[in-house]
Amino acid sequence: MAATAIFDPVQRDLDLVEEAIRQVGQVDYPLLASLLQYILSARGKRVRPAIVLLAASFHEYRLDLLVPLAAAIELLHTATLVHDDLVDNAAIRRGIPTLNTIAGHSVTVLVGDYLFANAARLCTETQNIRVMRVFGETLMTICDGELRQVVSAGQWRQTRQEYFDKIERKTASLLRTAAATGAILSGAPEDHIEALSQYGRHLGMAFQIVDDVLDFIGDEATLGKPVGSDLRQGTLTLPAIRLLEEQPDHPAMRRIFEDGDSSDRAIGDAVLAVVQSDGIAVAMEEARRLSRLAVASLAPLPASPSRQALETLADYVVTRAS
Amino acid sequence: MAATAIFDPVQRDLDLVEEAIRQVGQVDYPLLASLLQYILSARGKRVRPAIVLLAASFHEYRLDLLVPLAAAIELLHTATLVHDDLVDNAAIRRGIPTLNTIAGHSVTVLVGDYLFANAARLCTETQNIRVMRVFGETLMTICDGELRQVVSAGQWRQTRQEYFDKIERKTASLLRTAAATGAILSGAPEDHIEALSQYGRHLGMAFQIVDDVLDFIGDEATLGKPVGSDLRQGTLTLPAIRLLEEQPDHPAMRRIFEDGDSSDRAIGDAVLAVVQSDGIAVAMEEARRLSRLAVASLAPLPASPSRQALETLADYVVTRAS
Repeated sequence: MAATAIFDPVQRDLDLVEEAIRQVGQVDYPLLASLLQYILSARGKRVRPAIVLLAASFHEYRLDLLVPLAAAIELLHTATLVHDDLVDNAAIRRGIPTLNTIAGHSVTVLVGDYLFANAARLCTETQNIRVMRVFGETLMTICDGELRQVVSAGQWRQTRQEYFDKIERKTASLLRTAAATGAILSGAPEDHIEALSQYGRHLGMAFQIVDDVLDFIGDEATLGKPVGSDLRQGTLTLPAIRLLEEQPDHPAMRRIFEDGDSSDRAIGDAVLAVVQSDGIAVAMEEARRLSRLAVASLAPLPASPSRQALETLADYVVTRAS
Repeated sequence: MAATAIFDPVQRDLDLVEEAIRQVGQVDYPLLASLLQYILSARGKRVRPAIVLLAASFHEYRLDLLVPLAAAIELLHTATLVHDDLVDNAAIRRGIPTLNTIAGHSVTVLVGDYLFANAARLCTETQNIRVMRVFGETLMTICDGELRQVVSAGQWRQTRQEYFDKIERKTASLLRTAAATGAILSGAPEDHIEALSQYGRHLGMAFQIVDDVLDFIGDEATLGKPVGSDLRQGTLTLPAIRLLEEQPDHPAMRRIFEDGDSSDRAIGDAVLAVVQSDGIAVAMEEARRLSRLAVASLAPLPASPSRQALETLADYVVTRAS
């Protein structure tokens, strides 16, 4: 099942979110307009906006407030990607050259900031102080997670717990916030807000683990980026941590992390070592466990097409190929 | 008169703002804490927080809301400086090495983002939607102004109007917002909000022009950065624009902007050419005109120590040496 079909209950409203996002690129300064349109045209799956809308649909569904919120969350996500690609010196994202590749680092810093500003502005359209507070705190958490990743890059003595702490901050926090703020705007009771928050958090962790697995076993054309990108940046993810739990001095890993060899050959050997270990299976088992926790978190909510969509999404993230 | 003495009417409250800013550096992640403390210890004059407090003092002075707002505005300012120094590749700010110099570009991007997030979080403590909206829009305006500066760098055919547009966006917008949001939070009537907004806008323009003048004639030790920094980055400011109005092909300027010579010798010659022209006098006359407009904008407000302080500040910005 494609991600888009899962979102059927809110598809028409997602089109409004898409239009709100497109509006951000309509500025009267031609250079900025073309850069914004370039970034915003590289559409992701819009998972976060869909979660906002689905999470809001259990109570009062205020579309006039939800559309700017969903757009704000997607723009916050886009802004962090723009800055991450700069931080990681990444050349390709979603199959097209990154902004830092085509426009240089100065412009990339400022366009990312501009997207953050737009996200903040759109968020104020919710007229909801609690939503705005959660939104600001989430950006702090994401930056904290990214900083931990940057600082720990090149270190191969990392524990699973450190990995989980990082992905909870850098990825799960925003999916959690998407679900939580959608619920808050709908006037949901606290136990429903908490249920949807936990759904988003577990889903986000599962999502990131699968992302990290795909970096080893995915198809480059489908991924839109080269396999082994994480190891090339010195980022240790769960499949490699698992390999190192079993073989702490694995020579292919030592070559990258101790000898600093980031040649295609060295990366290729390390990717192969991880793929031939049980690292992929262990990571996928963990992702499926988290996906089940996400589904279980929804227990307090009534059965509905939206709840079904959220459950299907949780299945999808652990079976997807890109 | 020192800037700090001008702020006497609100000095005790500025200490609370200082404490709120200091709190931002108190995080339980040692690396992030040390970086934040490094940045936040390089204290500026805290002009923006002082304007927030002074602007709020004409009506209901809600210190519990004003302190987070003033801290948020100073942090937004600090975040833009952190990213600007990265964009400009600047090595020194306020007499100490910039974050990009000591920590590299990846960490600098993320720490700047973290400061933006903190600014947004503190802003939500005002509980005022209008203040938050103005805040988000201001960040958009600042980024827009910075982008215009980056994109026009190295171009020597720029008009005064283009220069004024840029400094209004990148500098005056935040001083305007400091005054406007202070007034909004105090429950001021619209004509007072508008008067204080115009004060902040004119003050900000005057402030930036003097900053740009000091880049030619200031004392390096007092400035905390080398003279001629703007020309070295290909940034054309009012004194140089004035020189080029009179001598459109001045050889020292041609050497920098056409031949791409950014040697100390080339920069030194161009600085000398500007200083020997009437560019400094013309720019300072413009700054004084804007400073008078700032003072005139305050006409609707009643006489008070705060109004006197704002007037004195407008005089100070055009007579200061750093």
